[in-house]
Amino acid sequence: MKILIPDTADIDPGRFAGHEVICYRAGAPVPQVHADAEVLVVWGTPLGVLQETAGRLQRVRLVQALAAGPDEVVAAGFRDEAVICSGSGLHNQPVAEHALALMPSLVRRLPETARRQHQRCWDDDLGGVQPLHPEDRLTTLLGARVLIWGFGAIGQRLAELCTVLGARVTGVARTAGQRGGYPVITPERLPDCLPTTDVLVLILPHVPETEYALDRRILEALPQRAFVVNVGRGRTVDEDVLVDALRSGSIAGAAIDVAVQEPLPAESDLRSAPHLVITPHMAGGRPVGAGDLLLQNVAALTEGRELINRVIRRRS
Amino acid sequence: MKILIPDTADIDPGRFAGHEVICYRAGAPVPQVHADAEVLVVWGTPLGVLQETAGRLQRVRLVQALAAGPDEVVAAGFRDEAVICSGSGLHNQPVAEHALALMPSLVRRLPETARRQHQRCWDDDLGGVQPLHPEDRLTTLLGARVLIWGFGAIGQRLAELCTVLGARVTGVARTAGQRGGYPVITPERLPDCLPTTDVLVLILPHVPETEYALDRRILEALPQRAFVVNVGRGRTVDEDVLVDALRSGSIAGAAIDVAVQEPLPAESDLRSAPHLVITPHMAGGRPVGAGDLLLQNVAALTEGRELINRVIRRRS
Repeated sequence: MKILIPDTADIDPGRFAGHEVICYRAGAPVPQVHADAEVLVVWGTPLGVLQETAGRLQRVRLVQALAAGPDEVVAAGFRDEAVICSGSGLHNQPVAEHALALMPSLVRRLPETARRQHQRCWDDDLGGVQPLHPEDRLTTLLGARVLIWGFGAIGQRLAELCTVLGARVTGVARTAGQRGGYPVITPERLPDCLPTTDVLVLILPHVPETEYALDRRILEALPQRAFVVNVGRGRTVDEDVLVDALRSGSIAGAAIDVAVQEPLPAESDLRSAPHLVITPHMAGGRPVGAGDLLLQNVAALTEGRELINRVIRRRS
Repeated sequence: MKILIPDTADIDPGRFAGHEVICYRAGAPVPQVHADAEVLVVWGTPLGVLQETAGRLQRVRLVQALAAGPDEVVAAGFRDEAVICSGSGLHNQPVAEHALALMPSLVRRLPETARRQHQRCWDDDLGGVQPLHPEDRLTTLLGARVLIWGFGAIGQRLAELCTVLGARVTGVARTAGQRGGYPVITPERLPDCLPTTDVLVLILPHVPETEYALDRRILEALPQRAFVVNVGRGRTVDEDVLVDALRSGSIAGAAIDVAVQEPLPAESDLRSAPHLVITPHMAGGRPVGAGDLLLQNVAALTEGRELINRVIRRRS
């Protein structure tokens, strides 16, 4: 089979013995000479370009996206016979790592220490003998109550990391129960949990039900010592309300890797909100294990077996 | 027994049934009325005050320090009959957590993103589609080679946390071999390991052999993508050489929680060194499990058993 791999993907062509593996530029449509490809890997190609490629590839059987939510690949117009598979699972580790960079950064006051560093101060209040669990501040993840809203594979990976650091994790998802050994509640139960939450992490996809999920009601239910972290999608947070909460001090701080509008406009109120860490949508963007997934799906395709991460396409 | 607990310690007196537990102010000498105490817990008392207390407590049998290295307690002049025990082990989790706040903070470029945030920029270079392991930069701890110099209880705890994040850890200690499941080399072997090291973490005590352990030779052996983290003691790092390395870009960045002179003087060159995160000696300072340790040592004292963390005092 002819397999097309973009230059953005970290996949070793040598692993696909017996197949013709071609590397193509992710930023340009696949050249006409490769229109006979049966497998296309997609990573980092803009929708317009992808549509042009989709129109060309009339023999494609598998479109392997490396994105966890390959909405644009589905929308690109690949022929109905092509199976589309997502890169779900490939981003667990990088996104969880980024959340884990942001959480202790907030808890250990790194934005504050950085400011003091530039002011050439050494803040004795932060160092030296400290209470382990002061009532009004969260200074360690040890024993901290962490609520992870959006408890799929990434959320569960983050839960494991938080547990190793000594935090107590509860997941929030559409179905209550137990998942990965953690208690899971539904969003309806949030009002009960929020008042005792130390860190609220959002890893929500953006769908109509999650639009502005983090609203005034949620933020007002959190205690003053609480931190909010968003490594999901910008549109799941009401940014005006978040800015209000940070300005009024009704929460202790927040870190967001995503925004409603990206790149974040220079004039956004988020820019000047206190105790807010902003990173430029960098949590993921580096799939781990893409080669393994592709290898398994190419084998499944060849042998007529079930493919991993198959996306159900709605026929129009 | 009369047990004196300082107001700085997070120990529940209710756990010591059958004993008389008195809470005293850590910043002042123990009042004369409690000079008959048999157990003294020490945490956050300055040496001068401690010396006055030591002179008063003529019936003290156990001095339980909560510091991992209780040099000042040993130097305070408690009577020879008193056993001094350290708080070794109580600081593993907080110090490891702080190191783990600093490491991903460097790897995920949080100081850079903070600067860009204040400049009202959104750095597209850092976000979006990224290579997982670019040759010239370290952007994830996944697969990163971490060298932990000073591989006692704190180092091994940090090693566990790094392993969960996917890093490959080697310890550096006075004795080579295996410890806690990790390979351990001696400092003599550093020249072999440094060129492939991504993150070098120092958790060294300050003794004559470790003074300025991080010198020009060590720093020059590290690759340009490497980060250095010091959560041990300031005097184990030659700060001039570190500043040179950061200014010249011979390493990618560093984070230090300790300095040769603390508080760090405003005019220190460290203040203006690029890619350097400074926190004000705040990694530890909050012992975890002090009550458990005290409970065990009080029981051991009562029953004439071996005490935990007993410090060998050199008689003058």
